[in-house]
Amino acid sequence: MSRMIDTAATAAMLANAQDVVILIHQYPDGDTIGSGYALYYALRAVGKRARVECCDEIPEKYEYLLDSARAEAFEPQFVVAVDVADDKLLGSLKDVYNGRIDLCIDHHGSNTEYADYLLLKADYAAAAMVMCEVLREMNATLTSTIAECIYTGISTDTGCFKYSNADAYTHRMAADMMEIGIRYDMINRSMFDVKSRARVELERMALSGMRFYRNGKIAVMPITCEMIRESGAAENDMEGLAPMPRQIEGVWVGVTMREKPGGEFKISVRTGNHADASAICKQLDGGGHIRAAGCSLMMSLDDAIQTMVDTIVNTVDRI
Amino acid sequence: MSRMIDTAATAAMLANAQDVVILIHQYPDGDTIGSGYALYYALRAVGKRARVECCDEIPEKYEYLLDSARAEAFEPQFVVAVDVADDKLLGSLKDVYNGRIDLCIDHHGSNTEYADYLLLKADYAAAAMVMCEVLREMNATLTSTIAECIYTGISTDTGCFKYSNADAYTHRMAADMMEIGIRYDMINRSMFDVKSRARVELERMALSGMRFYRNGKIAVMPITCEMIRESGAAENDMEGLAPMPRQIEGVWVGVTMREKPGGEFKISVRTGNHADASAICKQLDGGGHIRAAGCSLMMSLDDAIQTMVDTIVNTVDRI
Repeated sequence: MSRMIDTAATAAMLANAQDVVILIHQYPDGDTIGSGYALYYALRAVGKRARVECCDEIPEKYEYLLDSARAEAFEPQFVVAVDVADDKLLGSLKDVYNGRIDLCIDHHGSNTEYADYLLLKADYAAAAMVMCEVLREMNATLTSTIAECIYTGISTDTGCFKYSNADAYTHRMAADMMEIGIRYDMINRSMFDVKSRARVELERMALSGMRFYRNGKIAVMPITCEMIRESGAAENDMEGLAPMPRQIEGVWVGVTMREKPGGEFKISVRTGNHADASAICKQLDGGGHIRAAGCSLMMSLDDAIQTMVDTIVNTVDRI
Repeated sequence: MSRMIDTAATAAMLANAQDVVILIHQYPDGDTIGSGYALYYALRAVGKRARVECCDEIPEKYEYLLDSARAEAFEPQFVVAVDVADDKLLGSLKDVYNGRIDLCIDHHGSNTEYADYLLLKADYAAAAMVMCEVLREMNATLTSTIAECIYTGISTDTGCFKYSNADAYTHRMAADMMEIGIRYDMINRSMFDVKSRARVELERMALSGMRFYRNGKIAVMPITCEMIRESGAAENDMEGLAPMPRQIEGVWVGVTMREKPGGEFKISVRTGNHADASAICKQLDGGGHIRAAGCSLMMSLDDAIQTMVDTIVNTVDRI
């Protein structure tokens, strides 16, 4: 269990900290990177030693946030995790920092309270918004670089202000960052507009293989190992495929089935107002939220599709 | 030539107007519909007769903005065009209201000044933002319905806050609308997330036919009459295809070639920092902006592709 603290106490703790290691989560995304580097730059600006650590490489598309960063070797005296809901998500760094994480700054209601102290704002769209409030409380100068970190966290975690978590406060904080002077055009372009050729090829194959049931109310999109191999898609080309079937007009339940090398299918279910994704996946020992849930099936593709369609038909009224 | 007026003068003019016809542009989009209906509801709320007129049907996906609207027959005493840069864009209504348009409220720098009076804010992302300022100046009550009209205009004209025109002021005005209480989640979903099956099929075919030149720096995507016929795509399924080739990593110049029934190709060129789309299209008697331009070619598909690639290679350095 963590001791819950507020923004002011968090700011005071960081103001007193020395030689700070900032941990961000595996498969790092814009929010964990943005939050982590915003804190890094603020600590460096007041003469502290700091570094960001991640078990995975930072994807190339986030490199504009790292231009002013330098790696520094030191023995950490204070360890803070940002946007990390569970210490499992530290990957190989979990064992390195086990029991030594002083503070966690997060926005996930599901935080497992692995850190000594926890600043949690579960109603915020992005951890970067929690971080922005902490930095303001620390009287940190919000430079363009820090503002780009915060903006990147906000825009990536809200799907560029498209998701329901992008409320008025989110827009206002983004506007504050823009007024500092940031390259938001370049950021949005590289976050939301650029796809690799392999990704485009994979999308094309996935669309070709899409199957419809119940008069178009169910759409199933298999992503097989063969498609992944043939398209040349890498792990970071696979992000954001799950919403595709549900985006088609008239679809109540969209199912993405990703084949894993061992023959298992990792299944993502997305629903609109007419169906409960979590109720569907619970039937198959999975779980999640009402609009997005998941489960796993170990069987042939055809059997997995049949199982999903049967389960949906039995769970969703009038489908 | 129009007489240019400011927001206060526009508000005063509308406050005195009776029996108002509001004209919006052909192939109506979220901004012209949102701006037009925002004004309609504000005028109705103070007991005036008003109606919105468009030469085309309002697409079904905007119907949530029309729920409280009622058609009313009356002889217009005041005619205002909103988000209409050129009276040609009134389509069949141009002749009906020729020389009778009292006022235009717009955000296009290219406005042709066909109305007696013009309120123009060319640096605003959406006409809905100009309208919002007018309604505030009129002391109109910004109801949820009006706020949804304004938000729809802003979000559609900025690609859901993705384009460079979405500046800090744009975000703040959107936040103001959200605080009034609007269904922004539903709006963003239906504007940006839903595609028809025909559209998905057309995208799949278009991706299959994409061709790359100059080491992937040029991408050409033909959309043939056959693809349109086979996919079953309607005119409103064709929106927003032009950016697709340029979204692929490494592409400097993205070309979309849409075959028209007579055998002509309508060509859209999109570029990044490395190339000038307008310079390319000028070589072929077309024109446009530095990042987005167009031209037409009357020849076979293969010749049209060869012509485009040759022109690009001759116009763009180091491609």
